[in-house]
Amino acid sequence: MNTFSIGIDLGGTNLKGIVMERDGTSRHLTRVPTEADKGGKKVLENILALIGLLLEKEISRDSCIGVGLGTPGFVDGDGTVLGGAENLPGWKSTSIYSSVFATYGLKASATNDVTVTALAESQFGAGKGVGNMVCLALGTGIGGGIVINNQVYKGTHGMAGEIGHIIVEPDGIPCTCGHKGCVEQYASATGIVNITRKLAPVYESDAPSTLKRIALESPELITAKIVYDHAKDNDPFGIYINDVVCEKLARALGTVINTLSPDRIILGGGVMKAGRIIIDTVSRHVPDFCWRQLWERCDIVAAELGENAGVLGAASLAFADLGDKSHE
Amino acid sequence: MNTFSIGIDLGGTNLKGIVMERDGTSRHLTRVPTEADKGGKKVLENILALIGLLLEKEISRDSCIGVGLGTPGFVDGDGTVLGGAENLPGWKSTSIYSSVFATYGLKASATNDVTVTALAESQFGAGKGVGNMVCLALGTGIGGGIVINNQVYKGTHGMAGEIGHIIVEPDGIPCTCGHKGCVEQYASATGIVNITRKLAPVYESDAPSTLKRIALESPELITAKIVYDHAKDNDPFGIYINDVVCEKLARALGTVINTLSPDRIILGGGVMKAGRIIIDTVSRHVPDFCWRQLWERCDIVAAELGENAGVLGAASLAFADLGDKSHE
Repeated sequence: MNTFSIGIDLGGTNLKGIVMERDGTSRHLTRVPTEADKGGKKVLENILALIGLLLEKEISRDSCIGVGLGTPGFVDGDGTVLGGAENLPGWKSTSIYSSVFATYGLKASATNDVTVTALAESQFGAGKGVGNMVCLALGTGIGGGIVINNQVYKGTHGMAGEIGHIIVEPDGIPCTCGHKGCVEQYASATGIVNITRKLAPVYESDAPSTLKRIALESPELITAKIVYDHAKDNDPFGIYINDVVCEKLARALGTVINTLSPDRIILGGGVMKAGRIIIDTVSRHVPDFCWRQLWERCDIVAAELGENAGVLGAASLAFADLGDKSHE
Repeated sequence: MNTFSIGIDLGGTNLKGIVMERDGTSRHLTRVPTEADKGGKKVLENILALIGLLLEKEISRDSCIGVGLGTPGFVDGDGTVLGGAENLPGWKSTSIYSSVFATYGLKASATNDVTVTALAESQFGAGKGVGNMVCLALGTGIGGGIVINNQVYKGTHGMAGEIGHIIVEPDGIPCTCGHKGCVEQYASATGIVNITRKLAPVYESDAPSTLKRIALESPELITAKIVYDHAKDNDPFGIYINDVVCEKLARALGTVINTLSPDRIILGGGVMKAGRIIIDTVSRHVPDFCWRQLWERCDIVAAELGENAGVLGAASLAFADLGDKSHE
């Protein structure tokens, strides 16, 4: 009998669920509202209901090897949310594994949402064919996921991969984590908006810049998309901001390369809708921050799987962590 | 029959060799001159001769599962030295595996000397009982080794763990690697001497400092040991230098913790003869540079095995990488 897993991707707005077979074939992609504003208990209820919905679609519930979950923030080895999920009020301290087991008699494995994304890219996307890779999601913040020897590396306590909080500018911009100069403050969507507003008054150039004018006259209109639209349109201030962003990002990636010597770094998240310009610029700066021999054996590419990477990775995680039931 | 491995630790001055059984029991620790000044070919001859010497001490050569080697610099997956071993002229491009196999019909596995040290500390020393750890050797330079899930992590190309070249001060002190502000320039023995000489003229304090006087009057006498002897003797400039050193080291360790969330960081190498003062000071600074949740699950300790860690780790590496012969 074909065994299957259930994958759940917990986002601030929507929950996504999927059924996956061991060979990676998936079905029943389902999306329901997270209802994050109703608190952590309601979010958990919605997750459990979604699992139930997916189980009902299968002929034999006994073939389910377990549930994989990707969530913002930290999850410890017992499946308890330790924090770091600011957009999910009341989600902290939730006991995921015991709730899933009590309701369905199924084991669960949960980890950070970018970590499951990294696993999905490794198995089905931009990371196919390489054993050691690091995935960064450049979104509202910056999340990281690490794949070592084709397996998710979560660290003993499930919390590895906080690459967004690598400090790239000592005494730099204060970060939500309490420190200063984290790469997240420069290369996330939020960071890009902030530094665009901050640098507009001091940026000088002979050529006229529409982006600078917008940033000065209507700073509330600035988004990462607008910055990159202008950069790709050769706006000099846009090009300058892209260079600042990518240089800071390159510092963090250089550190990651010096430490892990990954075969590949995959950049995803909303900011990467800008595409090639970021890959090209960051790749130009990275060699300034790591050993040449390591950089020659690493490439930086864009993520391939898009917004369903998380749910696919979550379902894969279940096979990786809970899959031994298939050998019974 | 008990299988055994041979471990070789290649140092700039001496070669060390050992025979190890699978349970970690070791014997025949032997030390011969490296003769690095006679070039890479002579070094290889000496390594091969040392292997022969150790094989002769065993009853059955057939029980040898292979040779593990720790070497300065980078070794690629085929056992070719790629560089990074400046104190071994002509060692670059040496084909280690094919030479060992051609001479003795034995397989070999080689990697960076700090990486084998990390493996030894993991199995026999300060890393016992934890699965994920990082080892730093604070010597003339700073080397790094990573153990993940109780196994050496070398990266696909054998070059992971270049933690000494994490940049902790953008536009800081120029490093031998060609970049600026690598932690090696602040927290290695060389770095400590340099910043002591550099900061002596500008350091001001009400209390008198013997160390400052020495650094100004006889800068050639400054060593890391002298700096730390004075720091432990409450010399104010010595205490200040220790704080500068450990703050920079903490920046690199914070980055490592944010990335890998190790259970433990082990500090070894000559500088660590200073002992507790470094552990205490760096541990005070690290929380400024990483997530609290990750730091709460990591401790920083001194290496335990001393100068034989490398050769023990090299012999262990052989079991890890070549050990399947024991199942034949």
